[in-house]
Amino acid sequence: MIIAVDASGGEYSPHEIVKGAVKAAQDYKIGIALVGKKDILHVQASRYMKKLDINIVDASEVIGDEESPIEAVIKKQKSSIVVGIDLVKRDQASAFVSAGSTGAVMYAAFTMLGRVEGIERPAIGSIITINIASPFLLLDCGANPNCRPKHLLQFAQMGNIYVREVFGVPSPRIALLNNGEEEKKGNQLAREVYQLLKASDLNFIGNIEGQSLPKGMADVVVTDGFTGNIVLKTLEGVGEAFLKLKNVSQEHSNASRKESRDMQFDVGFGAMVKRIDYRESGGACLLGLNGNVIISHGRSQAKAIRNAIGMAKQSVDRNVCQIIQQYKFIEPDPPMTETNDEQST
Amino acid sequence: MIIAVDASGGEYSPHEIVKGAVKAAQDYKIGIALVGKKDILHVQASRYMKKLDINIVDASEVIGDEESPIEAVIKKQKSSIVVGIDLVKRDQASAFVSAGSTGAVMYAAFTMLGRVEGIERPAIGSIITINIASPFLLLDCGANPNCRPKHLLQFAQMGNIYVREVFGVPSPRIALLNNGEEEKKGNQLAREVYQLLKASDLNFIGNIEGQSLPKGMADVVVTDGFTGNIVLKTLEGVGEAFLKLKNVSQEHSNASRKESRDMQFDVGFGAMVKRIDYRESGGACLLGLNGNVIISHGRSQAKAIRNAIGMAKQSVDRNVCQIIQQYKFIEPDPPMTETNDEQST
Repeated sequence: MIIAVDASGGEYSPHEIVKGAVKAAQDYKIGIALVGKKDILHVQASRYMKKLDINIVDASEVIGDEESPIEAVIKKQKSSIVVGIDLVKRDQASAFVSAGSTGAVMYAAFTMLGRVEGIERPAIGSIITINIASPFLLLDCGANPNCRPKHLLQFAQMGNIYVREVFGVPSPRIALLNNGEEEKKGNQLAREVYQLLKASDLNFIGNIEGQSLPKGMADVVVTDGFTGNIVLKTLEGVGEAFLKLKNVSQEHSNASRKESRDMQFDVGFGAMVKRIDYRESGGACLLGLNGNVIISHGRSQAKAIRNAIGMAKQSVDRNVCQIIQQYKFIEPDPPMTETNDEQST
Repeated sequence: MIIAVDASGGEYSPHEIVKGAVKAAQDYKIGIALVGKKDILHVQASRYMKKLDINIVDASEVIGDEESPIEAVIKKQKSSIVVGIDLVKRDQASAFVSAGSTGAVMYAAFTMLGRVEGIERPAIGSIITINIASPFLLLDCGANPNCRPKHLLQFAQMGNIYVREVFGVPSPRIALLNNGEEEKKGNQLAREVYQLLKASDLNFIGNIEGQSLPKGMADVVVTDGFTGNIVLKTLEGVGEAFLKLKNVSQEHSNASRKESRDMQFDVGFGAMVKRIDYRESGGACLLGLNGNVIISHGRSQAKAIRNAIGMAKQSVDRNVCQIIQQYKFIEPDPPMTETNDEQST
């Protein structure tokens, strides 16, 4: 198995990306195709290339976060994003992992790999592990700010397959993120989705409220891309705030030479913060495309990249993409007329 | 100043409510009208009634959380919620504080006190203090799951007045909660609201993403009631998860007789958790009504009730309600045709 990794994407590229990719090659015994500027990558990676299955695929252009995703993908055909996704398209790689411009990765993946038949809107699924005993898949995390009820049903169906295959949960508990538990709660969209999910053959357990997210009640939490993105990022923000607090206190603690490292609390706390910290956690998967693509946070460091590659490997191992392709999705209605394809995470 | 307090509402009523109200009467030197079952309240409160300005107003009925808010309010005219809001309506109390059924409080307040002229949708505003150095008002937190752009503009205008008057911030920074920073990001609603806010005379600083909420960038964060409710409750849920972790570790710590109480981190952490813990923080204010109403969490204990009463006192002291009444809101369009008044927090 070869996983293509965007070595030019993200705030800490290429150094942290290469470091994470090398770690993944070691830990998972897989092949890595580092996609980026050849010369730079040679300097960074050549010493690992003898003993590990790491190759460099040249991509001379870089798409920046500030660029218009669509224009950049069309114009920069030699960018790491376009070259990397092309490797997946041509079966030269089993998956593509990128911490680069989410919009550009999505647009390139969307146009180059294409949607699974019957899927109108591919979605971004993110594994939330606030509760380590019971992680859940949240989707959509930002691919579709505007959704119709049928889209959320499809998100649930894809999420169901992902969690069943990757987590090995036989009948994943599907919940709808809502502002109340009762069936009639929610905005117009949520209320209509509730009825679709209730009528489906999924193991739909009803609405879930924000405060119940850490409680391990659901395996898949479905929402529109606007809400999902805001929830995901709010969790990130809180994690970051706690982390800052922890760092400040550790500095203080070191300064006053207090020894407190073995505290049970400190360990549990650190672990929880790490789990909601994007620098540590892996990435989010694009579901509904003909190919495996993992989007990492733009501020991912080595550990997050290594974990994102692990996530890609799992999807490949479990044939998530193929199983979604074989699922009979209901035919979507004609596309919405309003403009709603701005993509974001 | 007399503040009416719903002694029959919430999971810990009447004991914790009475306790919180007594503390508020002491701390703020205000009068309290305890609204609830006379006989029970006499037993609970009589010993404080000699030295503090505490009175009991009989309300023989109780509205439960499981009841339909509209039916319950219509049927139970002797409920603590109806009696309490009636005190505000008849100027017998300056504000009403309740930890009872949010839907019932909202419906009763809406119908009995009425909307401020020009305001189509009153909103729930909640003060978020993850960052103690820079708290912000989030609204709407659940009164209006379905919103039109103009509603969010009005939320911003009301939030602006609240923060300016209560926090004393001369020109509050208004931000729109969104799934990206750029002007064109968001769902249809957010994009249209952006343009309205940009054209307004408010100090609009643009979009804010979830991860930036703890960073102290905005004084007022505006969103629809669906998203706002989910964000508020997600913060609650994370706070609760951390608190649980803290409690578990303290038990462990006590068991193994480790002394760690004076750790800087522990203190900072505890304070942060407390700030996002609904049992400690006060309540949320209803903005846009002809009267001051504060909604507390159903699981509020004495400290939260005391703080909610403090919040009510601030609104009264600063004439928030009157200033909103004097503001020239733009005339709303005719009401939406879809059913969208299900209310929730």
